[in-house]
Amino acid sequence: MNIDSNAPLGVFDSGVGGLTVVRALRELLPNESIVYLGDTARLPYGSKSPETIRRFAEEDTRFLLSHGVKAVIVACNTATAHALPSLQQTFRIPIIGVVEPGVEATLANSNCKRVGIIGTAGTIRSRAYQDAIEQRGGEVTTRAQATPLLVPFVEEGWTQHPAMELVLRDYLKPLLDDGIDTLVLGCTHYPLLVETLRKIIGPNVRLVDSASTCASHVKVMLEREQMLRDAIETPQLEIHLTDYSPLFETQAKRFLGIDFGEIKKASL
Amino acid sequence: MNIDSNAPLGVFDSGVGGLTVVRALRELLPNESIVYLGDTARLPYGSKSPETIRRFAEEDTRFLLSHGVKAVIVACNTATAHALPSLQQTFRIPIIGVVEPGVEATLANSNCKRVGIIGTAGTIRSRAYQDAIEQRGGEVTTRAQATPLLVPFVEEGWTQHPAMELVLRDYLKPLLDDGIDTLVLGCTHYPLLVETLRKIIGPNVRLVDSASTCASHVKVMLEREQMLRDAIETPQLEIHLTDYSPLFETQAKRFLGIDFGEIKKASL
Repeated sequence: MNIDSNAPLGVFDSGVGGLTVVRALRELLPNESIVYLGDTARLPYGSKSPETIRRFAEEDTRFLLSHGVKAVIVACNTATAHALPSLQQTFRIPIIGVVEPGVEATLANSNCKRVGIIGTAGTIRSRAYQDAIEQRGGEVTTRAQATPLLVPFVEEGWTQHPAMELVLRDYLKPLLDDGIDTLVLGCTHYPLLVETLRKIIGPNVRLVDSASTCASHVKVMLEREQMLRDAIETPQLEIHLTDYSPLFETQAKRFLGIDFGEIKKASL
Repeated sequence: MNIDSNAPLGVFDSGVGGLTVVRALRELLPNESIVYLGDTARLPYGSKSPETIRRFAEEDTRFLLSHGVKAVIVACNTATAHALPSLQQTFRIPIIGVVEPGVEATLANSNCKRVGIIGTAGTIRSRAYQDAIEQRGGEVTTRAQATPLLVPFVEEGWTQHPAMELVLRDYLKPLLDDGIDTLVLGCTHYPLLVETLRKIIGPNVRLVDSASTCASHVKVMLEREQMLRDAIETPQLEIHLTDYSPLFETQAKRFLGIDFGEIKKASL
């Protein structure tokens, strides 16, 4: 298979949360063009069944392929947890998820002994993080907690609201009681909660964020496969959403941290 | 058009919240059979665009028609607000939404002067309640507030959590400062929050709940059109979901207040 290294990277998520990965990609790989698909018409994926998530992820990937991408980044932990192996079997271009980079970054620190993991109900139920960390981490133990209210709070923009703090304290109590030394943010929405999280977990628990570790992983892969873009034209960022609303646009700007051109409406 | 009065009622919602309407229907019309469709694969509708909501509502209605229902109840405020007129134009059986009954029940009390309305972003943005109440209510004024965090809290089962109280106090403050005498629960999830709501709004604000007022409306319509079921066999309740997960089953039982048979998986 002949891949054009000047083709764009494809990135998808159930909504706009995956734009935290795009933000990290643009910082680390400023010369790459990106086509982003947010499946806002069917979001969230986190509460849905593995079978349904696999079907959605396959449709999302086909959409990106029809836009000529050179690789696909699954910027959604739930979709990675349930659909990555089947996507990699079905399609012949490189497909990278967010779980594997997060696991590697977690285990890269040799002081890591007890790992807390937070994510959507679907991600936690899949045991993708727990199994990978325990299998490869030797003595490392994990403690996972589904935290389904965090995405709605982030989408409401209430990341520092007193109620958000109460919710986080409640979710994190069993993990902190357990003496975790590392907390994996197993959802691409959660980087926006870092300040409030830090207040609750204190200065000594290490935070591993799947958005930035995924971007580093993509960079290594592009270098290894000699797939870095070398075109002279300014790189493009295209954002497609399966449902458009002004709310998604506002959220998208918050997640991406920059303004961007027109959002395109996609049909799957 | 010849409608079989022994055919079931069809009820749909974006998820399982509409089962509060089914619960009210079963109390008021215990002899009716019901086919319920929850579009759990694509929930929630509340954050999505009018165009997408109309497409989903039409597909939901076609599914119910293929199950031979005699009338369709749109047990979702967002779908009612955006799609009811177009559904009524497209299909030839009676289609009843939750907004109109809620508006009638609100205005039925002559002491009602200032009405607060809470609902999803989509319902509030549609102005369905505000416009109907103001047009027909003479001097009655409205104050609406989108409350997107309430559905996630209800789905998490945290209806009495201290964080839920903080969130509600924040959302309701402008309405209470405005001196509302009536609060319309413009979402079929909200009846499960009545206890916590009552604590915050005090004993004197009247609560209007769209689930029970919708059921009364359906009863009047069936009587008027001579469409009440008179079959001798036990009435049936069939629940179809576009995505099945154990979580949805737990939630469904909470919303319906009774156990029920097997959930069926629907494809739209």
